[in-house]
Amino acid sequence: MPGEKDVLPVLREQRIELPSWAFGNSGTRFKVFAQAGVPRDPFEKIADAAQVHRFTGVTPTVSLHIPWDAVDDYGKLAEHAAEQGVSIGVINSNTFQDDDYRLGSVCHPDPRVRRKAIDHLLSCVDVMDATGSAHLKLWFADGLNYPGQDDLRARQDRLADALGEVYRRLGPDQRMLVEYKLFEPAFYATDIPDWGTAYAHCRMLGDKASVVVDTGHHAAHTNIEFIVAFLLWEQKLGAFDLNSRFYADDDLMAGAADPFQLFRIMHEIAGAGAVTPDGGVLFMLDQCHNIEPKIQAEIRSVLNVQEATAKALLVDREALRQAQSEGDVLGANAILMDAYNTDVRPLLARLRIETGLDPDPIAAYRRSGYLEKIVAERVGGSAAGWGA
Amino acid sequence: MPGEKDVLPVLREQRIELPSWAFGNSGTRFKVFAQAGVPRDPFEKIADAAQVHRFTGVTPTVSLHIPWDAVDDYGKLAEHAAEQGVSIGVINSNTFQDDDYRLGSVCHPDPRVRRKAIDHLLSCVDVMDATGSAHLKLWFADGLNYPGQDDLRARQDRLADALGEVYRRLGPDQRMLVEYKLFEPAFYATDIPDWGTAYAHCRMLGDKASVVVDTGHHAAHTNIEFIVAFLLWEQKLGAFDLNSRFYADDDLMAGAADPFQLFRIMHEIAGAGAVTPDGGVLFMLDQCHNIEPKIQAEIRSVLNVQEATAKALLVDREALRQAQSEGDVLGANAILMDAYNTDVRPLLARLRIETGLDPDPIAAYRRSGYLEKIVAERVGGSAAGWGA
Amino acid sequence: MPGEKDVLPVLREQRIELPSWAFGNSGTRFKVFAQAGVPRDPFEKIADAAQVHRFTGVTPTVSLHIPWDAVDDYGKLAEHAAEQGVSIGVINSNTFQDDDYRLGSVCHPDPRVRRKAIDHLLSCVDVMDATGSAHLKLWFADGLNYPGQDDLRARQDRLADALGEVYRRLGPDQRMLVEYKLFEPAFYATDIPDWGTAYAHCRMLGDKASVVVDTGHHAAHTNIEFIVAFLLWEQKLGAFDLNSRFYADDDLMAGAADPFQLFRIMHEIAGAGAVTPDGGVLFMLDQCHNIEPKIQAEIRSVLNVQEATAKALLVDREALRQAQSEGDVLGANAILMDAYNTDVRPLLARLRIETGLDPDPIAAYRRSGYLEKIVAERVGGSAAGWGA
Amino acid sequence: MPGEKDVLPVLREQRIELPSWAFGNSGTRFKVFAQAGVPRDPFEKIADAAQVHRFTGVTPTVSLHIPWDAVDDYGKLAEHAAEQGVSIGVINSNTFQDDDYRLGSVCHPDPRVRRKAIDHLLSCVDVMDATGSAHLKLWFADGLNYPGQDDLRARQDRLADALGEVYRRLGPDQRMLVEYKLFEPAFYATDIPDWGTAYAHCRMLGDKASVVVDTGHHAAHTNIEFIVAFLLWEQKLGAFDLNSRFYADDDLMAGAADPFQLFRIMHEIAGAGAVTPDGGVLFMLDQCHNIEPKIQAEIRSVLNVQEATAKALLVDREALRQAQSEGDVLGANAILMDAYNTDVRPLLARLRIETGLDPDPIAAYRRSGYLEKIVAERVGGSAAGWGA
Repeated sequence: MPGEKDVLPVLREQRIELPSWAFGNSGTRFKVFAQAGVPRDPFEKIADAAQVHRFTGVTPTVSLHIPWDAVDDYGKLAEHAAEQGVSIGVINSNTFQDDDYRLGSVCHPDPRVRRKAIDHLLSCVDVMDATGSAHLKLWFADGLNYPGQDDLRARQDRLADALGEVYRRLGPDQRMLVEYKLFEPAFYATDIPDWGTAYAHCRMLGDKASVVVDTGHHAAHTNIEFIVAFLLWEQKLGAFDLNSRFYADDDLMAGAADPFQLFRIMHEIAGAGAVTPDGGVLFMLDQCHNIEPKIQAEIRSVLNVQEATAKALLVDREALRQAQSEGDVLGANAILMDAYNTDVRPLLARLRIETGLDPDPIAAYRRSGYLEKIVAERVGGSAAGWGA
Repeated sequence: MPGEKDVLPVLREQRIELPSWAFGNSGTRFKVFAQAGVPRDPFEKIADAAQVHRFTGVTPTVSLHIPWDAVDDYGKLAEHAAEQGVSIGVINSNTFQDDDYRLGSVCHPDPRVRRKAIDHLLSCVDVMDATGSAHLKLWFADGLNYPGQDDLRARQDRLADALGEVYRRLGPDQRMLVEYKLFEPAFYATDIPDWGTAYAHCRMLGDKASVVVDTGHHAAHTNIEFIVAFLLWEQKLGAFDLNSRFYADDDLMAGAADPFQLFRIMHEIAGAGAVTPDGGVLFMLDQCHNIEPKIQAEIRSVLNVQEATAKALLVDREALRQAQSEGDVLGANAILMDAYNTDVRPLLARLRIETGLDPDPIAAYRRSGYLEKIVAERVGGSAAGWGA
Repeated sequence: MPGEKDVLPVLREQRIELPSWAFGNSGTRFKVFAQAGVPRDPFEKIADAAQVHRFTGVTPTVSLHIPWDAVDDYGKLAEHAAEQGVSIGVINSNTFQDDDYRLGSVCHPDPRVRRKAIDHLLSCVDVMDATGSAHLKLWFADGLNYPGQDDLRARQDRLADALGEVYRRLGPDQRMLVEYKLFEPAFYATDIPDWGTAYAHCRMLGDKASVVVDTGHHAAHTNIEFIVAFLLWEQKLGAFDLNSRFYADDDLMAGAADPFQLFRIMHEIAGAGAVTPDGGVLFMLDQCHNIEPKIQAEIRSVLNVQEATAKALLVDREALRQAQSEGDVLGANAILMDAYNTDVRPLLARLRIETGLDPDPIAAYRRSGYLEKIVAERVGGSAAGWGA
Repeated sequence: MPGEKDVLPVLREQRIELPSWAFGNSGTRFKVFAQAGVPRDPFEKIADAAQVHRFTGVTPTVSLHIPWDAVDDYGKLAEHAAEQGVSIGVINSNTFQDDDYRLGSVCHPDPRVRRKAIDHLLSCVDVMDATGSAHLKLWFADGLNYPGQDDLRARQDRLADALGEVYRRLGPDQRMLVEYKLFEPAFYATDIPDWGTAYAHCRMLGDKASVVVDTGHHAAHTNIEFIVAFLLWEQKLGAFDLNSRFYADDDLMAGAADPFQLFRIMHEIAGAGAVTPDGGVLFMLDQCHNIEPKIQAEIRSVLNVQEATAKALLVDREALRQAQSEGDVLGANAILMDAYNTDVRPLLARLRIETGLDPDPIAAYRRSGYLEKIVAERVGGSAAGWGA
């Protein structure tokens, strides 16, 4: 089994991006339970995100979501982030909350709505230019609720046209990340429902486009680590939206619902040498904290991802390859499980101490008084949220 | 095969209840697309529901939802309904939208919150007394998002206590309908997740309690007609919440996603002689019309249920029993499919003509100008909706 | 709505291929229930398949499965088929029943086993040469039962190598059809689990390779018609394995479990002009008749496919396009449902009469005495089956 | 957190029963891969099962399956078991492999077949009398492949009649365990498809009847630990069939597919004080080892169950209750996860050493030479298997 000296250097370099929207209010169609102290603007969201980095040391970037995080002066926002010790990461587009988008955005039957949606995407590239962000992440709510509602193939034509126009607008160092999702908010057909569709479009677009795997966006029984392995094999894995689910797109804390699955995913990542940023894969959290405290839930998620990674790095790959080549089914599985069953929390505590962090980020955060402070200070104004 | 003379008398007696909330705005956690002309109070909801009855002739009752439909004077509301040609049906409780209910209602760990929730349920029985409604329908959003969040068995104790207290408050002619749901808004465990749990509680409660089957509340692969048949066999089927789904609780129009499933369900109902009100089973629509016009979608759903019922009544049960007893797998299946493949729309058109209705309710509604009228009139005020 | 004169010409040209293995014994891991009169060799299987063509008129070809249908003299087998009024169609390979394949075939960790599997595939091309078959259909049982059992990416390397070698062996008029399947017999990971994987390999291979959609090989909640539409859009849809399922790969009669889904699939096919052979898509049945009489079950399946096709052809596409472009959700859906709800059996009866067939193929087959004849004649010998 | 001194006494008493059939050949409908050294009769199966007990110390009983394990002299079989250090446990019936059972057994439309099936069940009670077994476990393959094939409610009548007759035959110390399963081998409807159906029948039967939870017999997304908790709450949980699955009833090694789920189940068991035999719940393995060595796979499964149990026993229930009552979602979840993330293998190694066992049962078994011995000795004869 690899030793701590093999594992720590990789864990030291691992980076996980935080989503600005995780710090605002969220909920289900039944109810959004408002929480005290929730940010009221992008500046306060970044401040909260910075707390996660302060206690974990591995989350130095924050994804923005446009228009939720639209501001007049992105330079000022970037400066604010720098003051907080973080920087702005991926730019996410939103083409699903305007009344015009009731029947879709870039796939809408009406060319006027498609134009409006594409223009919004192009404006997101402007935000990238303004913030120095290198990645545009595209998720489309486009789809149908009823059979016959629209033409599936015509919508692919429209999708390809829109993606192509935005792709051509990208600068030389800018990248496009294309996300897929099985269903919701569309309940019959979604225009990019699975990795195959995202992959096919990315191949058509070119090398700057790659696929985003959101761990909550699959049908039951889908082997997500297979998709990860295949996209790595095809060099088309661009990023992860990490979260967890027992049912649909539940958006629970990463690693909370199926820690073994997260480990298996990280095992594929580690096997391909893609844990660290130079591997070319972005790791982002993408979660909703409907009933739990938001900052603490983000910290817990980061710890869960780190633990799954540490276990994956502990897999004795030499021995594993040997057992695999001999067809030793139980032996190979046991080597994997040996790493999974290891308690890596002491190892991660040592990593934190070595980098000047508290070994227990949750406890340190709770002691810090930050939550009490924002609850007291953030009075009045309008709490950030999805605004559905 | 049974003839029109066997089928029409049953279809004439069939009744389908409408939910008041189907006429207000609804959506997903991503967006509620507001529609013009949407009701602004319970009176306008009932007026819209009455339109569905006007054109279909089989939906004379409207379910209320408390507190969404709370009014000062229920007598006045009942009178208004009567003027519109309909009456008030089932009373539905809502214990999931108050901030106190973040961690549950009747299963909440805090006895104060449980008391509040039970008091609300008891007040719904007061509404039943005031409106003459005979049925209290209980759906609980109670559940957990994370393993360990609360004690599953302790929550069953609390649930049983609450149900018992409300059950004892029912008058001699009042009934309790207990609904189950796999997930949402809870994403790890739901306190009444399946028919077995609802059934067990109803058996403990007594004869006045029975189970509600919502066709969208099951795991994938669940054979819903088996549940229907079993509950009929056990005399514990109280009511249906009809809607349809391709994925989760999509709440699309009944019969839109899997018309063959709706037919199979109605085949079990017809086989047990439970299509008409004297069969003791209530049929209700429970749907969201997020992107489609609401009144028209309700009419379409009613037509779909009628068509499935007509096909089920056309099954040649004598021949079916014969084929079944002979073990003629393909013969028995063919008898069922023969009814399903029949186009029953002409038969239903004749039924409508005979009762003074337009044979094409959708076309008649569209010609009526009602939508244009409410769009013009309902200006100002606050559109009804779930208010999540 | 299109009239009979628009629909009949297409239905006249529609062709559905039969699988030789549908006529042998099959079952589950729990039990294979043997049926009387089952074929004992490929010649008798073809004779049974010819009966389906005799009564339906649309199934003139029979797929072989090697080695189940291996014979010394393929010329003689082809001649026998011609005498029965049918011909030999697709050649299917089997690399999952030799003890060597316990851990896979073309993806096996041992190069010796991979060589053996590839050689078998190449020998299937020899059978194509000998029989004049133009299509090689590849389904692999390859996969893993346990995490860690083998390396997912290494297996893709091996898969790509094997496919490439076989692809290069194809003659100018020969085509490769690549099938995917979610799971079974592998229970953790399958090497071609979804359409995306099959599609990616087919794109790498070239124009002679395309994807097979088996309607029973998907996760629950998968929108199969979307996959069909997408593959048509990408010109990579090669063939269908038709059957139906309520749960996993149940292999029930096509159209039996979800006739509306089959209709939606055929709607996409019809919309792309791919119903008839010149559309470049092969339609094959691929089913198990574990408890029902086999020939009759095949006939019923053919009728189900014809009925779904007829309904799809009846969709008023002009009106549909209009409603879609206007964003009329309910109008567009109603146009589709109008076709689905039409009883097309009289139309198909007329088609049969016009071509000299009995309007009721099931009744005609049952009257023919063929089953009684084979039960009486096929005594002794060893009944064909999967031989698991 | 509880200490080793709290946990070890419970682990010392834990017992897991082994199934005789796990040691014979098994497979899928596609192929049964025969393994060398496989038992050829019930005596050899018991000998293999005894090896698992020899190295783990917690599996002193073996379930029989009638007729697979039918012998002339059960006294002799029991004596043989005693010589091997084990004894005979639960008696399992098989009414699915006779040609008569093609359309069902106790639910079959033909009373002659039902009589035959009931007689077989009664004869299983005779075997209980002869072996001293206290438990009859009933799993029925009964169900339908096609809608309409038989009458769902009539089949419940037949089922209730059969269960009642067998129940009345039980001696005062004999118990009936009723198992449910979602699907397979029936592909449309199963007569006992879910826990609710099994529970309802057990309640009708009386106190001697309780429900078996097979962890592989549920729809995707089913919360199994909820079912466990509910049945414990209702005192109707009789036994577990442990195994694991990624898809359907895959029957992989217990704990292999979702170790966190197994932990959550054991957490409910531990919370109800039902880990040890005096808790009244039987724990049995029920698995197929299609590609892995059988004895070793059973040992691994036992270790997995022990590890999950040890973790569940380590949950700090006092602290958990406190966090739960305070509504501390993340705190409560963290307490549970703290136990799950603990590496309990050293603790279990100490338990084994203390009881005179090798701390590493797998290594000890592999060193023992038992596999080599049976491969050499068991030559000729017919290997045991499911004989599908």
